[in-house]
Amino acid sequence: MQRWNSWGEAGQDYPLPEHALCYLADLIGPGYPLEEVLLETASTQVTKSRLADHPLISKDPELRVRYARGHSFADWLAKKSGQFETVPDGVAFPESRDDILQLLEWAEQNDCNLIPYGGGTSVVGHINPQMGSRPTLTVCMSRLSRLLALDKESLLATFGAGTMGPQVESQLQVHGFTLGHFPQSFEYSTLGGWVATRSSGQQSLGYGRIEKLFAGGRLETFQGSYYLRPFPAESAGPDLKECVLGSEGRLGILSEVIVNISRLPRFEAFYGLFFPDWQAGIAACQQALQQRIPLSMLRLSAPEETETFLRLSDQQNAIRWLEKLLTFRGAKQGRCQLLVGVSGEKAQCHYAWKQLRRINRFYGGVNTGQLIGQQWQRHRYRNPYLRETLWQAGYGVDTVETATQWLHIDSLRQAMEQALREALLDETERVHVFTHISHCYAQGASLYTTFVFRLGETYDITLVRWQKLKAAVMQTIVNHGGSVSHHHGVGVDHRDFLPFTKDERQLQAISALCRHFDPNERLCSHNLLPPNNHSLPTTLCDEPRQFKETADVIV
Amino acid sequence: MQRWNSWGEAGQDYPLPEHALCYLADLIGPGYPLEEVLLETASTQVTKSRLADHPLISKDPELRVRYARGHSFADWLAKKSGQFETVPDGVAFPESRDDILQLLEWAEQNDCNLIPYGGGTSVVGHINPQMGSRPTLTVCMSRLSRLLALDKESLLATFGAGTMGPQVESQLQVHGFTLGHFPQSFEYSTLGGWVATRSSGQQSLGYGRIEKLFAGGRLETFQGSYYLRPFPAESAGPDLKECVLGSEGRLGILSEVIVNISRLPRFEAFYGLFFPDWQAGIAACQQALQQRIPLSMLRLSAPEETETFLRLSDQQNAIRWLEKLLTFRGAKQGRCQLLVGVSGEKAQCHYAWKQLRRINRFYGGVNTGQLIGQQWQRHRYRNPYLRETLWQAGYGVDTVETATQWLHIDSLRQAMEQALREALLDETERVHVFTHISHCYAQGASLYTTFVFRLGETYDITLVRWQKLKAAVMQTIVNHGGSVSHHHGVGVDHRDFLPFTKDERQLQAISALCRHFDPNERLCSHNLLPPNNHSLPTTLCDEPRQFKETADVIV
Repeated sequence: MQRWNSWGEAGQDYPLPEHALCYLADLIGPGYPLEEVLLETASTQVTKSRLADHPLISKDPELRVRYARGHSFADWLAKKSGQFETVPDGVAFPESRDDILQLLEWAEQNDCNLIPYGGGTSVVGHINPQMGSRPTLTVCMSRLSRLLALDKESLLATFGAGTMGPQVESQLQVHGFTLGHFPQSFEYSTLGGWVATRSSGQQSLGYGRIEKLFAGGRLETFQGSYYLRPFPAESAGPDLKECVLGSEGRLGILSEVIVNISRLPRFEAFYGLFFPDWQAGIAACQQALQQRIPLSMLRLSAPEETETFLRLSDQQNAIRWLEKLLTFRGAKQGRCQLLVGVSGEKAQCHYAWKQLRRINRFYGGVNTGQLIGQQWQRHRYRNPYLRETLWQAGYGVDTVETATQWLHIDSLRQAMEQALREALLDETERVHVFTHISHCYAQGASLYTTFVFRLGETYDITLVRWQKLKAAVMQTIVNHGGSVSHHHGVGVDHRDFLPFTKDERQLQAISALCRHFDPNERLCSHNLLPPNNHSLPTTLCDEPRQFKETADVIV
Repeated sequence: MQRWNSWGEAGQDYPLPEHALCYLADLIGPGYPLEEVLLETASTQVTKSRLADHPLISKDPELRVRYARGHSFADWLAKKSGQFETVPDGVAFPESRDDILQLLEWAEQNDCNLIPYGGGTSVVGHINPQMGSRPTLTVCMSRLSRLLALDKESLLATFGAGTMGPQVESQLQVHGFTLGHFPQSFEYSTLGGWVATRSSGQQSLGYGRIEKLFAGGRLETFQGSYYLRPFPAESAGPDLKECVLGSEGRLGILSEVIVNISRLPRFEAFYGLFFPDWQAGIAACQQALQQRIPLSMLRLSAPEETETFLRLSDQQNAIRWLEKLLTFRGAKQGRCQLLVGVSGEKAQCHYAWKQLRRINRFYGGVNTGQLIGQQWQRHRYRNPYLRETLWQAGYGVDTVETATQWLHIDSLRQAMEQALREALLDETERVHVFTHISHCYAQGASLYTTFVFRLGETYDITLVRWQKLKAAVMQTIVNHGGSVSHHHGVGVDHRDFLPFTKDERQLQAISALCRHFDPNERLCSHNLLPPNNHSLPTTLCDEPRQFKETADVIV
């Protein structure tokens, strides 16, 4: 059974070796574990549901607790402490499009709010019910998880929107196809959730972000059902698919998703390279992208992350050999690990890897073959589990991610890391911070920064500590022209920072769109847009900082 | 000087050889040339402008006639006959963003409508002023045509939205970059127009459609100025860039466009192949796309088009040799010409061309090397000029284009061609019809069909003839699940067919968006959406015809 207050199934543990915890204690001090409440205890504190009875809706307190929160750090604190501000008044399990339309109508008649729930893996508060006079109904999509149609000629597949990653792949792979969308949350996140949040998988370089994979589908709304047809390309007005993408539940409930699929790759490999420094690694990635080498993944760890991975590994014998090789080849202090993926036709993979080796040589990189890549592939979904391991040891861990142009990637990374390292200086708490580039484009890349800090003596102290870290790094990101998110979405946690990157007028346009679809604000109105009384820093956004200041401006 | 009632500069002629016109006369009968009016004559018939004076606005009658119509066949008839239903009341030439904002304000105060005008190359009525009580001001963007900023690291360039194709390329190429957007209208169409209509260039397979190239920019609206920042990727709500794309002037006036650029390719070549039949050609294209071979162009002519090209060529000696080669190698009746482009790094081009030759062999194609490709490249923008050549010989020529899935490409082509061939049967007029696939995707392709017919004895008869052809083929397209347009847009000519592919609710959502940006409907309200009293065939659209009927449906 899935854990109610952590990631994964009960019994699935990924312990860290002793030396890894010692390394962490050296860096930021010994951990401070906090006591957790039991599900039973949390459930007894749940207030009575305000919803009327309905055959599709369960009002079981334990269920309502299970569906109350996602996986942001604040969500974890709520679940570990049992201190839920609020839980949904009920959870519905629709089995068809008609069920969803019926629930929408029922919500209108019974004056309640709705939250579409995919896998509950949001890390920015998307699926959290809000305090208010209206009852909240969480609509779990898990029963709409089937492959409904497959066009093998045109590489299109239609799924129920609640289909989780492994269900998507198993139902496609039996026919020889793949979607190729592998976010770190893959095991529990759903197609509908990926679309609603503009998700990006680890191999998006090859398969594309969900924006490229999302071909059409059905959106159930208070205005009725929308069918978005999957044209290969179209010149027929603004694209409503792009409004559904990133709509974070505010326009309607996706019931069916049509996706562009690929034939299963005939060849796939992941390689590990080490560059002497960050600048060389960045230049290599930039060049590979701008020369359009057909890779499926590039993932470049900055020096601190490279070092942390080597130190935390449970294969210290292999690491010692690797260290010797790297030192001998000149990749010592400041070295950066680059993971390279190739997927597809064998000839194309060989061509791509050959081109990448050429770039690697040019920038003085060391090619260590497939061992590290295989290791990564085996553990590609492990990080969310390590969060629990660190929690048990008394540490909090969270991540933040953004995207910017190549021109700013270095300054943004430095600023983000510095902001996090200094965010708890007033408490003389140290923070361990490390970064990688997770997705590359010809124009720029995403930065994915992890921060580890000690839990406080109480849940309240811990929450404040996290809030300080989060606010410091988010403000730094938007001040330096980064996006509020590259693939986690806006939700509640990022909405106050959105006005720094989209100006007031843009938010008003999005708001007008939301009002058209959901005039009574029943659908996730907490997501995406800052509350109306928020003062918007329009001046910051009117100045395209990243352009005027540093680019080559031609007069 | 640019011709006022035809394509290109005065004196730029592309005469057809005698045998070509004989071939055409054999097929559909001798042409019937119509008399044209002079610009001076047309200008004298223009009614007095209803606009007040403004320093940015010219009310010169000749200028107003020049900016009155685009390049649809109906537009040509209006210009050739001098029978304009209406012309703009004035033409403004803003030189800055402030000028545009000033004109918007002035239009509001003076209760007039606005039409943003790029190069006037629309073929679906985008820039035609409409009859009505309000005066119309055409806003010509030609003075906003400079490269404003260039970020060589992140491959981003900012241009004035009125920059025409050759100006885009010359300003980039001097720095070693290219946009790579080469629609057939390249010589006169503009960046802003490409964005507003979701344009696609001949090498979109390599560089991407304008949707992929458009990174951000500035939209001047009645709500003020919008700045769309160019993030490499973002997970921050619905994408307003995708609402501006295809907005066809209804949301605002694009003043600046930021585009994703590429380094100039180190190698580029175009090759000519011949497949024994259409099915083999289709299969080869489909396979090349689904295997992701990094090509920059695929253009497959169906048998009639292949035959027409061979017959119309002015190099009949070379063609006779080619005929012998093709007949010897088995590509006789029904053969299909495929043009293949590769652009980029030399190694990548060689790899791609090698892979394509492998597919070519598998499907029994004949590789004729680069000669035909070079010929195509030299004349890549010639077709609009031939329209004038045929006009002078008494023939009308027009094109129609759509996109659909691979599963339907063959049946849609057959249906389109048949509809056109039979559209004038009541007049016992024959129509010469031929088709190519101009853009390929993993999921499907676009169909581009040309039809040649005899002009009628009068302009009115000719207009009715063309309307019958256009209506027949458009209805056939939407009945067979094709898009109303792959790259020409909706404008006036396609708007009545849009409800067959986007249902009533989708059009209402787009309408709500338009109302938010332009509450008083001053901006191009003739484009995109059918007039309100149009009865919408929602049932057709609710049924996803292309899916349910023919795909492999899994139960």
